[in-house]
Amino acid sequence: MDQLSHESGCHHESGHGYLDHKDEYLRRLKRIEGQARGLQRMVDEEQYCIDILTQVSAMTKALESVALAMLEEHLSHCVVRAARAGGEEADTKIKEASEAIARLVRS
Amino acid sequence: MDQLSHESGCHHESGHGYLDHKDEYLRRLKRIEGQARGLQRMVDEEQYCIDILTQVSAMTKALESVALAMLEEHLSHCVVRAARAGGEEADTKIKEASEAIARLVRS
Amino acid sequence: MDQLSHESGCHHESGHGYLDHKDEYLRRLKRIEGQARGLQRMVDEEQYCIDILTQVSAMTKALESVALAMLEEHLSHCVVRAARAGGEEADTKIKEASEAIARLVRS
Amino acid sequence: MDQLSHESGCHHESGHGYLDHKDEYLRRLKRIEGQARGLQRMVDEEQYCIDILTQVSAMTKALESVALAMLEEHLSHCVVRAARAGGEEADTKIKEASEAIARLVRS
Repeated sequence: MDQLSHESGCHHESGHGYLDHKDEYLRRLKRIEGQARGLQRMVDEEQYCIDILTQVSAMTKALESVALAMLEEHLSHCVVRAARAGGEEADTKIKEASEAIARLVRS
Repeated sequence: MDQLSHESGCHHESGHGYLDHKDEYLRRLKRIEGQARGLQRMVDEEQYCIDILTQVSAMTKALESVALAMLEEHLSHCVVRAARAGGEEADTKIKEASEAIARLVRS
Repeated sequence: MDQLSHESGCHHESGHGYLDHKDEYLRRLKRIEGQARGLQRMVDEEQYCIDILTQVSAMTKALESVALAMLEEHLSHCVVRAARAGGEEADTKIKEASEAIARLVRS
Repeated sequence: MDQLSHESGCHHESGHGYLDHKDEYLRRLKRIEGQARGLQRMVDEEQYCIDILTQVSAMTKALESVALAMLEEHLSHCVVRAARAGGEEADTKIKEASEAIARLVRS
């Protein structure tokens, strides 16, 4: 990732998109960290595999929701800003966002 | 879907994003239609379930690739155009694209 | 795929699991084929990309449902039969089913 | 989850399937917990959203791998055992496993 290239499309001083909700993301990721610890406790206590798998699915869904929220903010801030600035930056941002979307869809 | 609302952000006269590659999309979807017919033949011939499931996964991947290509073109054409036009249209387009991404990630 | 190896665990004469519902699978796959044709018509008529993506998601979900139903029948027929027969066949079947599940989860 | 019902198919004394690899699962989940903490640090340091999304995809894939490994062991231990024991227990186990697979495929 070229730091300069994305800085020009998504200036640090004006904030990355998700920073408006930084505390909310930290809170959600903290809860996901708690879910990872809960899974370790379940394995350690030798709980039933199907119950563990149910918790893994819940944790995956929580992670996906964080990713989708972050992606929407990225599109509405960084991508829109790059589109307005014009030039190649918009293409770079769209390509980069599309690759991130493909990774989410395929994971 | 409000026809007027997206028309203003993605004018018909200038073409929907994917139209540059209309023939390629039609060709890919034709092949996917063929995969659906191939699956019927496999079921009809009572082929082994695991082999059928392998073909279902291949078909799902082909569909996902079409969706991701179409989404990238939508972002680089309609969304960029709406962002440049300014106003509420950009927000509407981003929200709409984000919902489509969420449906793809969750399907 | 070794024909003999799975035949021994899932005898043709007793039917592959999904055959109890062969007509239902054929009907569902026919409908999915129709969805693939509907998508071609939408692209041909240059309909709005987001509306096309919504149909792609619906079609992906329909395919997934077919796969999950077929997998459940495979587990309750072929895998259970192999488990009862004992020997290495059960291990082979479980490994094969697990690989199919992994392909579905990752597609 | 009826404790008695799954105990009869997957006796505690003979161990849940995944217990053979309990330490490995604990180690993998510990690393996933570390990834959740790494994500919080990235958000806190206001790193670039796309880089954060890349880490979210990696974490989702790690979780999926744990789930698939656990499911395979569940099938080869608890489900095979229930199939051999015969009776309704096998049906219950297959139904339960199929629902867990559906949750994984759809998450």
